[in-house]
Amino acid sequence: MFKIKVLNHDVIEEILGMKEVIEVVEKVYTLKSEEKTELFPMVFHEFERGIADMDIKSGHLKGIDIFGLKLVTWFGENHKKNLPPLIGTIMVFDSKTGKPLGILNAEYITGMRTGAAGAIGAKYLARKDSENLLMIGTGHISTFQIAATLIAMDNIKTVRIYDPINHDNARKLSESIKETLMNKFLSKYEVGTEIYKEINEKFDIYFEAVNDIKEAVSLSDVIITATPSRKPLIMKKWVKKGTHFSCVGADMEGKQEIDENIFGVARVYVDDINQAVNVGETEIPVKKGIITKENIIAEIGDVITERAKGRISDDDITIYDTTGIALQDLLTSKLVLDISEEKGLGVEVNL
Amino acid sequence: MFKIKVLNHDVIEEILGMKEVIEVVEKVYTLKSEEKTELFPMVFHEFERGIADMDIKSGHLKGIDIFGLKLVTWFGENHKKNLPPLIGTIMVFDSKTGKPLGILNAEYITGMRTGAAGAIGAKYLARKDSENLLMIGTGHISTFQIAATLIAMDNIKTVRIYDPINHDNARKLSESIKETLMNKFLSKYEVGTEIYKEINEKFDIYFEAVNDIKEAVSLSDVIITATPSRKPLIMKKWVKKGTHFSCVGADMEGKQEIDENIFGVARVYVDDINQAVNVGETEIPVKKGIITKENIIAEIGDVITERAKGRISDDDITIYDTTGIALQDLLTSKLVLDISEEKGLGVEVNL
Repeated sequence: MFKIKVLNHDVIEEILGMKEVIEVVEKVYTLKSEEKTELFPMVFHEFERGIADMDIKSGHLKGIDIFGLKLVTWFGENHKKNLPPLIGTIMVFDSKTGKPLGILNAEYITGMRTGAAGAIGAKYLARKDSENLLMIGTGHISTFQIAATLIAMDNIKTVRIYDPINHDNARKLSESIKETLMNKFLSKYEVGTEIYKEINEKFDIYFEAVNDIKEAVSLSDVIITATPSRKPLIMKKWVKKGTHFSCVGADMEGKQEIDENIFGVARVYVDDINQAVNVGETEIPVKKGIITKENIIAEIGDVITERAKGRISDDDITIYDTTGIALQDLLTSKLVLDISEEKGLGVEVNL
Repeated sequence: MFKIKVLNHDVIEEILGMKEVIEVVEKVYTLKSEEKTELFPMVFHEFERGIADMDIKSGHLKGIDIFGLKLVTWFGENHKKNLPPLIGTIMVFDSKTGKPLGILNAEYITGMRTGAAGAIGAKYLARKDSENLLMIGTGHISTFQIAATLIAMDNIKTVRIYDPINHDNARKLSESIKETLMNKFLSKYEVGTEIYKEINEKFDIYFEAVNDIKEAVSLSDVIITATPSRKPLIMKKWVKKGTHFSCVGADMEGKQEIDENIFGVARVYVDDINQAVNVGETEIPVKKGIITKENIIAEIGDVITERAKGRISDDDITIYDTTGIALQDLLTSKLVLDISEEKGLGVEVNL
C-alpha cells in the first residue's frame, strides 16, 4: 500500500496562484525546448460522435522526475443531468519508482494552465508596449486568459471583450470581470506585499464589451481567441501591423478562430508542432497550403530559451497557437501537491 | 466536486473472491465476442530500456456503461528501495456521464483476473476429464493460476509445480500452496455453504514439486505457463495428445514459454488477436511463419458464446494465449466497487 494525496477542486482553487502557474508553464516550455520532456501518444475515443468523448494525454517531465496523465471527458448533454460537460482527473507519478503521488481534479488546473499559456504567448511575442487587449470569447476560460495576460504583461490599459454569438455575454463579463479578478486571482496574494500591489494595479484598468469586432481588432495590440468556433471570426484585412494573436480555442480537428490567410503574413509559433498541425489553429492553414509545417518558426520554448527568435520588428504580426500539453497539467499538479504538503491540505489515502 | 471511492490493496484483497472473478472475466470475454466492448490503443513508455517502463491500457465496456484505464509501472530496481517492482492503479469512469467512479490499487485485481484468464482457457479448451495440472513458474501469479484453475475445473487430482530456474522455489511453493489456497481463496466463502464445500474439496488434492519437466509434461493434461521466459521451456516432442496449454507469461515482444512448433499442431485460441500476435505467446510462431494470424481459430469469447468451436477431439492439443486486456481489470474493479458499496468499505473522497 502507498499513501497518496487526493486534491479536490476546492482545495486546488484555494491554493493555486496565477503568477506561479505562469512560471510553471514557462518552465514546462523551457524543459521541452531542452529536450527534458517526453509526450506519450494521445488516446482519444468518441462514445457518441459530436456528443460525448474522452481523451487521455500523458507524458514525462524528465527534469523533474514525474510523469502522469490527464483524462478528460466531454459529455455535451451533461447539463440535463446537472453535471458539468467537461470532467477531468490528473494522476501524478514518481518517475524514479513508478509510485503514484497524487490524484487531482483537473478543472481548475486546466483553466489556470490554459490561461497561462495564452499569456506566455503574449509575453514573449507581443510588443512590450502593447496597451490594448481584445478577448474573443466569454466562456469559463476567458477569465483565466484575462487574469494571466494582465499579470504577464506590463502595459495593458484596456481590455475589450467580444462574444461572437451573444453580445449580452460580453456585456455581463465586462461588468463583472474586475470583481472576479480581485476575488479569484488577487486574493491569492497577501495584502500589502509587492506582488499584491503590482497585480492590484494591473487589474485596475478599463474593461469594455464591444459589438463591432472589425473595429475592435483594428484597435488591439494583443488578441486572444478562446471560443469553440469552427470558422474564422477575424479576417486578415482587419488586422493592423504589429498585432499579436494567442489562439487558444482550437484543440480539435476542424476548429478555427482566425482567417487562415493571416498565417501567410505572420510569424507563427506553437506549443507543440505535432499537435498544432493536427488539431490546433495551425491545422487549416497547413491543410490549405497557406503555410507548411516548416514555416512554423519555433515552439514557444525555443523562444524562451533563446534558441529561436521571437518578434523581430514592431510591424510583425505574430501568432501563438497553443493546443495544450499534458506536461503543463503535470507540473502545475506537482506545484499544487507541494503547496498542499506545506499547508497540510488535501486528503491522504492509502492505495 | 464529485464523490469517488478509493479502494486500497487490503480492502480489495479482503472482499474479492476467485469464483466471482472467473465469472467476471468470462462476462468480459462474452461482451467482447458480442462486440459490446472497445479497446483503446495502449500507451507504452520505457524510462530506461529493460529497467523501467510503464503502460496505460484503457477501454470501454459498452454493455456495462463503464470505461477506464489501468496504469502499470515496472521498475526492476525497486527492491533496492524496498518497493515492489510492479505498481498499478486503476481508474473507473461512468460512460454515460464521464464521471469518475473509483480509484483502485491494481495489484490484487491483476493477480485475480490473470489467474481467472488462464483458468477459463482450461475450462473451455482442456478435456473435461483432465486430472493432472502442471504449473510452470513459481512467482506471485502462480498461486492465482492454481486457485482459479482448481475452481474452474472439476476433476483435477494432482498439481505439479516446476520452476525453470530454481527447484527450491517449486519445493517451497508445493509445501505451502494448500495452506495459501485455504487462507487466501477458500476463506472468502462462508463455512458450510455449498460453494465452500465444493472449493474445499477441490483444494484438498495432491501437490508436488517436480524437477524433470520432460516427464512432468508427459504426465499432464493441463499446463499453465506463467514465467518471464524469453525462450521455450517445453519442447514439442514431449507433449502428448490431448494436452491443453494456457500461456500466461508472454505479454511483451520477445517473450516465449513453449516451443513455437507446438503451434503448428495445435488448435490456437487467444484473448485478443491483435495483442496475441504482437506481444503474446503467439508472436514468435507467427513471426517465424509456423502459423499465420488466420490460423488462430478464435478469441476465447467466441468459444464461450459458441460462435466458434473449441476442442473437437480428445486428441487435440489446444493452446490458449492470454495477454490480458484492460476490460478484465475494469469489470473486476466494478465488482469490487459494488461489493465495497454494499459492505460500506473503502474510503470516499471528494474530487
